[in-house]
Amino acid sequence: MMNQTLKVAAIQQSCSTDKNANLDATEAHIKSCAQQGAQLVVLQELHATQYFCQSEETRFFDLAEPIPGPTTQRMCKIAQSLGIVIVTSIFEKRAPGLYHNTAVVCEKDGTIAGIYRKMHIPDDPGFYEKFYFTPGDAAFNAETQPYPGVAEATRNGFRPIKTSVGKLGILVCWDQWYPEGARLMALAGADLLIYPTAIGWEPNEDVAEKQRQQEAWVTIQRAHAIANGIPVIAPNRVGFEADPTGHSDGIDFWGHSFICGPQGEFLAKASSNQPENLIVELDMARSESVRRIWPYLRDRRVDAYGELTKRYID
Amino acid sequence: MMNQTLKVAAIQQSCSTDKNANLDATEAHIKSCAQQGAQLVVLQELHATQYFCQSEETRFFDLAEPIPGPTTQRMCKIAQSLGIVIVTSIFEKRAPGLYHNTAVVCEKDGTIAGIYRKMHIPDDPGFYEKFYFTPGDAAFNAETQPYPGVAEATRNGFRPIKTSVGKLGILVCWDQWYPEGARLMALAGADLLIYPTAIGWEPNEDVAEKQRQQEAWVTIQRAHAIANGIPVIAPNRVGFEADPTGHSDGIDFWGHSFICGPQGEFLAKASSNQPENLIVELDMARSESVRRIWPYLRDRRVDAYGELTKRYID
Repeated sequence: MMNQTLKVAAIQQSCSTDKNANLDATEAHIKSCAQQGAQLVVLQELHATQYFCQSEETRFFDLAEPIPGPTTQRMCKIAQSLGIVIVTSIFEKRAPGLYHNTAVVCEKDGTIAGIYRKMHIPDDPGFYEKFYFTPGDAAFNAETQPYPGVAEATRNGFRPIKTSVGKLGILVCWDQWYPEGARLMALAGADLLIYPTAIGWEPNEDVAEKQRQQEAWVTIQRAHAIANGIPVIAPNRVGFEADPTGHSDGIDFWGHSFICGPQGEFLAKASSNQPENLIVELDMARSESVRRIWPYLRDRRVDAYGELTKRYID
Repeated sequence: MMNQTLKVAAIQQSCSTDKNANLDATEAHIKSCAQQGAQLVVLQELHATQYFCQSEETRFFDLAEPIPGPTTQRMCKIAQSLGIVIVTSIFEKRAPGLYHNTAVVCEKDGTIAGIYRKMHIPDDPGFYEKFYFTPGDAAFNAETQPYPGVAEATRNGFRPIKTSVGKLGILVCWDQWYPEGARLMALAGADLLIYPTAIGWEPNEDVAEKQRQQEAWVTIQRAHAIANGIPVIAPNRVGFEADPTGHSDGIDFWGHSFICGPQGEFLAKASSNQPENLIVELDMARSESVRRIWPYLRDRRVDAYGELTKRYID
């Protein structure tokens, strides 16, 4: 099913308050990546708008869209016209009062191949996501499951989405701090791990702490590649966005998007302060060869992992 | 129970074929670390001997010792005389034909605080550990469990060992590639993660592959610190050891021992080719403050992790 090589792209963007202008810019970036041969283009988390979770305001629910909706339709149309697969990320309105942070995969024929609703939801000063997003309960796979009538038994969020370019293990931002999510995606056959992200610094944080945070963000995602023997694609937002309430100093999104291989080796890295498209040709046969020399899946102690489903062992 | 600061040491050694000479050198290093204030000293994996798993030979079972046995008695005596805690690593003979790769914690009063039997056992060319070591089925905690009569219900290997300097989440070498082990130790209250290691390169491997391997080894262990918000101490063997059978070119153990804090930040790093003692004063209150800004334990999706006990989801 999969080609031995796969050209992938990650788009690192800054966002204005003008949604259409943002989507126009995204479309231009996607076209540029496709012209350079990208078969899979991954967009950053909530790329159509500024990161509205800096404050808790009911008016921001107006930014949400159903699936399908204007943004997924636009992205699927682009995917179809370019003959590529696009991973988009939207603020999903599932029902009145029920919203998700959702990645949507647009197949090259213009259909939706699947969705992933962010499973781990953060809540920190400046990142008030628990106000906006219900944790995901389901992914659907267009091949095996209808949407929205997904069978309850299969409503496990950690399921890769089958596409014409491979099984995509899509997780979103805060999920990236959880080895459990990455592992479950790998166990379910993911060929790639993908982390659309919106993470940044408090502008007044001290430099050493900024460095620790950004390095930790990179390190833990490289570790997911290593632990599971598959590449990771992590596009992050870049640029400063003010707090609309003026209560905080806003967020300086730290960019530094990257793509790494199955040993965690960097294949491409973006800057911390500029929009940028990363394009890499992945050798998809490398996961098999790396897993042969590092056969971690062989030796997992599944007999001794039962307590991973506990909140705490006390 | 715990001091706010804890001075810890990791000893990176090379080993000769003379076990007593190795232990003499180790003792001198431990004393040096204690003189510099170390309260906890961690030794590398199987530090008393050369790494005998380069080949499969029944004669090497003669190297194994019971617990207590000569090496643990010697280490416990040193621990008592210096008033420190020592993590030693031995080839354990549990019964005729039943051997383990076991970390033993010597308390400052000279008693054994607990043992950890390596749970994940590798088997790769040059690292034929499945021939020698039965995977661990138990850890025991001196406070709550007798040894050897550990109740079957509590024979879960991923249990930190309670000591006068904190709860030590000890794992061994190949375990370091498994986020599951680190997480279970953290969930069971580990204050630190400790990875006695013996890892190296095939001497003729190309330079880029060597670099990827060593960097992956560092990266995944830093990620365990990050994911769990606790420091990691990882002492590794250094120096070249020949394959006694002459069938391979031996192993160039890559050293590069390190200690990192709860954000994965390096606190000390050793070279790749020299014996070295790393000594660091850990601020044990930092785990609490890091977990407040990165509250990963709060948001784990324990409702969706059940399949982590599956070999594969197919």
